[in-house]
Amino acid sequence: MNLDTISSQDIILTGDRTTGQLHLGHYVGSLRNRVILQDRCAQFLLLADAQALTDNMGNYLKVRDNVLQVALDYLAVGIDPAKSTIFIQSLVPELTELASYYLNLVTVSRLERNPTIKDEIKQRGYERDIPAGFLTYPAAQAADITAFKATLVPVGDDQIPMIEQTNEIVRRFNASVDQPVLVEAKAVVPEVGSRLPGIDGKAKMSKSLGNTITLSASPDDIRQAVKMMYTDPNHLRVDEPGQVEGNVVFTYLDAFHPDQALVAELKAHYQRGGLGDTVIKKHLEDCLQDMLAPIRARREHYAQDPAAVLDMLKAGTRRARDVAARTLAEVKAAMGLNYY
Amino acid sequence: MNLDTISSQDIILTGDRTTGQLHLGHYVGSLRNRVILQDRCAQFLLLADAQALTDNMGNYLKVRDNVLQVALDYLAVGIDPAKSTIFIQSLVPELTELASYYLNLVTVSRLERNPTIKDEIKQRGYERDIPAGFLTYPAAQAADITAFKATLVPVGDDQIPMIEQTNEIVRRFNASVDQPVLVEAKAVVPEVGSRLPGIDGKAKMSKSLGNTITLSASPDDIRQAVKMMYTDPNHLRVDEPGQVEGNVVFTYLDAFHPDQALVAELKAHYQRGGLGDTVIKKHLEDCLQDMLAPIRARREHYAQDPAAVLDMLKAGTRRARDVAARTLAEVKAAMGLNYY
Repeated sequence: MNLDTISSQDIILTGDRTTGQLHLGHYVGSLRNRVILQDRCAQFLLLADAQALTDNMGNYLKVRDNVLQVALDYLAVGIDPAKSTIFIQSLVPELTELASYYLNLVTVSRLERNPTIKDEIKQRGYERDIPAGFLTYPAAQAADITAFKATLVPVGDDQIPMIEQTNEIVRRFNASVDQPVLVEAKAVVPEVGSRLPGIDGKAKMSKSLGNTITLSASPDDIRQAVKMMYTDPNHLRVDEPGQVEGNVVFTYLDAFHPDQALVAELKAHYQRGGLGDTVIKKHLEDCLQDMLAPIRARREHYAQDPAAVLDMLKAGTRRARDVAARTLAEVKAAMGLNYY
Repeated sequence: MNLDTISSQDIILTGDRTTGQLHLGHYVGSLRNRVILQDRCAQFLLLADAQALTDNMGNYLKVRDNVLQVALDYLAVGIDPAKSTIFIQSLVPELTELASYYLNLVTVSRLERNPTIKDEIKQRGYERDIPAGFLTYPAAQAADITAFKATLVPVGDDQIPMIEQTNEIVRRFNASVDQPVLVEAKAVVPEVGSRLPGIDGKAKMSKSLGNTITLSASPDDIRQAVKMMYTDPNHLRVDEPGQVEGNVVFTYLDAFHPDQALVAELKAHYQRGGLGDTVIKKHLEDCLQDMLAPIRARREHYAQDPAAVLDMLKAGTRRARDVAARTLAEVKAAMGLNYY
């Protein structure tokens, strides 16, 4: 994502499903940017509990409990609720109302052709037993985006079809009512390298794979994770050349180390031989410990007063509802559904 | 529908899509019963504008304008807003919230197997281009029913699968949260003979077929309709025997004439020959004119003050929202979605 193209007129909508604590992958891919973006334009951050329920109905307490956990992660990394509007999706009923009208503007076959949905259906092994809420969630996502008249939606490249679907709904709605009520959004795809592999070298850091480092990881968790981290499996002797590509320690050093000149030097040394994994892991561990210590401390600070965090969420949700209610009123008025 | 089985503890949910004025078919099949039922138990009457939009998105002003028209029809036939809660669906956002959770409890293939939906998809010629809102409307209907903890839902026999679908959702929700939050409903199917054919003899009275007599029909409309009415096409001479079965005039006399002994006599006379269509039509016209005159007069009276009708709808909608909001709060609390 090229942050320089963001204008103060832009409105960002992004957020997270509340299915688990956030980890370094979220930090690199989005949280870090949000801290910068909140000073540049309006930013709405969605705690997507309702969306998480579309495939977690059997595990609703996990979804509920992680609302607070994700909010703590946000505060811990420096997202400022005075600058960013953090809100709970299930407490903004205007979103379900908008989604219910959008469902009339998209066909079942169009939803089934949505590549993101197709992939996720395959991943989850749903075959034909797809919960209807899962198939239709592009309409709900269109509601999340359009309710705030978001102009920018940071997404992974696998999510681009979702934004296209939103914009289709926007154009179809505006055409039906012959008024430009809704606003199209632009997908903002992060730069290459902003997707962090798991500590085991797998492409995706994911809680279910057990290959993450959470933002609340203890010093010992971090130590253990770096120790287990995938490097170059063929680099058996220190004095032999090692490989940097696909070596997770270097990927992480690229992503997090404040002294990139040092990282370049370490890479060169590793490649020509004579630099062992223990040394590069020590560099990484120190850097992660330094980076996560203040995040963990802030997290622990906020976690001591969950009531205050909920108050913050309540205020954010109220702000979000006000905006969503204005959009909904325009949408309903355009369809003549303003009876009194 | 056997009205004697209704208990004062029952809660009825029924209503009409707001796509056109109501006609004699509605009167026989449901409106007449509602006037009786409102004295026996709680009755919620839904002006289903949002549901009508699922297949009328291109014609939303028709849907909007008919909210007032259907409300006038209700008042005209004697539905009393002090006894029945008449409300506008699109103004009860709790319904879309409930529906959004129910969508997670029903699979796409289950919706596609719903016989009512299958038939209606065929009727509308949607093939695969089914609006998602149309396929998923059983979830919305489940919300309409369960929001009021309705125990009885008067429906045509083609709609029984919809009530089964609702009860499936009820059982699945209650099982997921391990609490009996939602209530199952019973489909109440009207007695045989309560479905009125069109004046052309076609099975269904329907505005699009142009074979209806609306509740607001003028004396001249009624006269013309009876004149055009389908009788026995083989009854060419008055002195020959005529057929009563399938003869729309007799079906209507059965449905509406206050003196059923006279109707029996007319039938016998017609069957043995010597009774012409002009005479039986005169009996029917007189009876319809008598029946519809006070309905039309009441309708015109209320139509003079649409603001007062809207006020009535506003009050009914407020009452309906209160009830739906209580159910929604229970549903969300059961899923742990009660954060503050």
